[in-house]
Amino acid sequence: MRTVLLIGVGAGDPDYVTVQAVKALNRVDVFFVIEKGAEKDDLIELRRRILSDHVPGGGYRVVEARDPERERVGLDGVAYRATIEQWHEDRTDIYERLVGGLGDGEVGAFLVWGDPALYDGTMRILDRVTARGSVAFETEVIPGVSAISALTAGHRIPLNRIGEPIHITTGRRLGAALVDGALPEGFDNIVVMLDGDLTFTKLSEPDVTIYWGAYLGTADEILVAGPVLKVAGEIESVRAEARARKGWIMDTYLLRRG
Amino acid sequence: MRTVLLIGVGAGDPDYVTVQAVKALNRVDVFFVIEKGAEKDDLIELRRRILSDHVPGGGYRVVEARDPERERVGLDGVAYRATIEQWHEDRTDIYERLVGGLGDGEVGAFLVWGDPALYDGTMRILDRVTARGSVAFETEVIPGVSAISALTAGHRIPLNRIGEPIHITTGRRLGAALVDGALPEGFDNIVVMLDGDLTFTKLSEPDVTIYWGAYLGTADEILVAGPVLKVAGEIESVRAEARARKGWIMDTYLLRRG
Ligand SMILES: C[S@@+](CC[C@H](N)C(=O)[O-])C[C@H]1O[C@@H](n2cnc3c(N)ncnc32)[C@H](O)[C@@H]1O
Ligand SMILES: C[S@@+](CC[C@H](N)C(=O)[O-])C[C@H]1O[C@@H](n2cnc3c(N)ncnc32)[C@H](O)[C@@H]1O
Repeated sequence: MRTVLLIGVGAGDPDYVTVQAVKALNRVDVFFVIEKGAEKDDLIELRRRILSDHVPGGGYRVVEARDPERERVGLDGVAYRATIEQWHEDRTDIYERLVGGLGDGEVGAFLVWGDPALYDGTMRILDRVTARGSVAFETEVIPGVSAISALTAGHRIPLNRIGEPIHITTGRRLGAALVDGALPEGFDNIVVMLDGDLTFTKLSEPDVTIYWGAYLGTADEILVAGPVLKVAGEIESVRAEARARKGWIMDTYLLRRG
Repeated sequence: MRTVLLIGVGAGDPDYVTVQAVKALNRVDVFFVIEKGAEKDDLIELRRRILSDHVPGGGYRVVEARDPERERVGLDGVAYRATIEQWHEDRTDIYERLVGGLGDGEVGAFLVWGDPALYDGTMRILDRVTARGSVAFETEVIPGVSAISALTAGHRIPLNRIGEPIHITTGRRLGAALVDGALPEGFDNIVVMLDGDLTFTKLSEPDVTIYWGAYLGTADEILVAGPVLKVAGEIESVRAEARARKGWIMDTYLLRRG
């Protein structure tokens, strides 16, 4: 039997790694590294540092593969879905080959940014590999500190007021849910991830506070908080400047009403 | 200046503790331990084990305090709010005394179950202490692995399907939001915490899957998953049995539609 570990390494600070993750790292025979076209040097560096800090003896192999390119041109409807499906199939091929390359009894691992359950596709692809039935393996998931926890820790705030619900969504979804620039009714604590469109700049509702953070948990961490109508412009320019300087950005924010 | 650390220790497994938390533990002069009337021996044991594993040299003080009792009798409206406000004030008194007991330059710490931002009151009480202005101190928050990550890791599932939003709520809120036993429109991934009422048993909507977990990350971990209409009864009896055996239970679940 082969084992595949999905190890959440936390969302930014190499010290977010848990003791459980460190123990898991030390069981690994093969680390699988998927290079995304847009992969950032800093993220590669984080992975490198986690391995050198916590598996100093080495003794593992590293197998690299390249994430297939995804058509990003303006398709819609059926054509769009077919492209996406093909892309998932291509990724499944790659992961199937990686897992299939493990020897009997060996342990392979993917290091996952943050927590493996939150807006990360690795588990879904492994499920597709399992469904194909060509390679027998077991999966174990090691939970990690998410960007949401990094954001609230940075700002030293709770996610919600007592007993209130919390909503986690993407920039795209939030954009679609806004009603004349107002947050939908009953959504008083919204965490927004994966927002390349700066959807918070489209808000016109007063009395909403934004807690924004970029490069959370790293030496480059930036935090801005305040009434969204007041600080949106500042965040926009700080974000543009940081992104230009570093070549990439990872940011997330909490919107709180009232 | 005094420093107060809020250290998230993860929600169950002592190995959920992060490297950052371990470093923080080793800066602490005084650990504050708040005993809740209903505090469970296992939770005290977790804390004890984290300290003995990661601060083996000792060299810290432990200061204990008892959480004030909260009136639980059937008050409503104004009377209820007054009782709650008094309870928060009483807790603020206690925390103010604890923090005020730190010597100049000393570091105190609260160990918080899971992640300090998620349904935990410690940060709010410290903010009240700060607002009183009688003790000068700085707060640092160390994020942790939440029960939500422990739940999805146990079941080896992602929190959502690609791009979908996620909702986190309490049993009480979910109960109030159910419409004739159906989940509200647009809420396809709901994590429910703090649910002593087994609100999932009130669902009558077909095509909802429940991923339930108790004592996550511990040796007693129990996982049950399946169509909620089919497994609700099983969860109810497993839960009652476990609770009777151990004297307490901590459980959480994800409801996924479709
Ligand atoms: C593909 S998702 C992965 C989330 C990850 N699994 C987690 O648990 O945080 C990437 C998004 O997470 C957020 N994110 C992750 N790490 C971050 C960091 N260090 N600072 C700010 N945002 C971050 C950003 O919104 C980014 O678009
Ligand atoms: C007061 S909240 C604290 C949550 C914590 N701050 C966190 O990040 O997970 C307590 C609730 O969290 C959930 N919970 C915490 N630890 C758990 C565990 N090990 N297993 C199952 N549920 C847990 C339960 O729903 C419980 O009612």
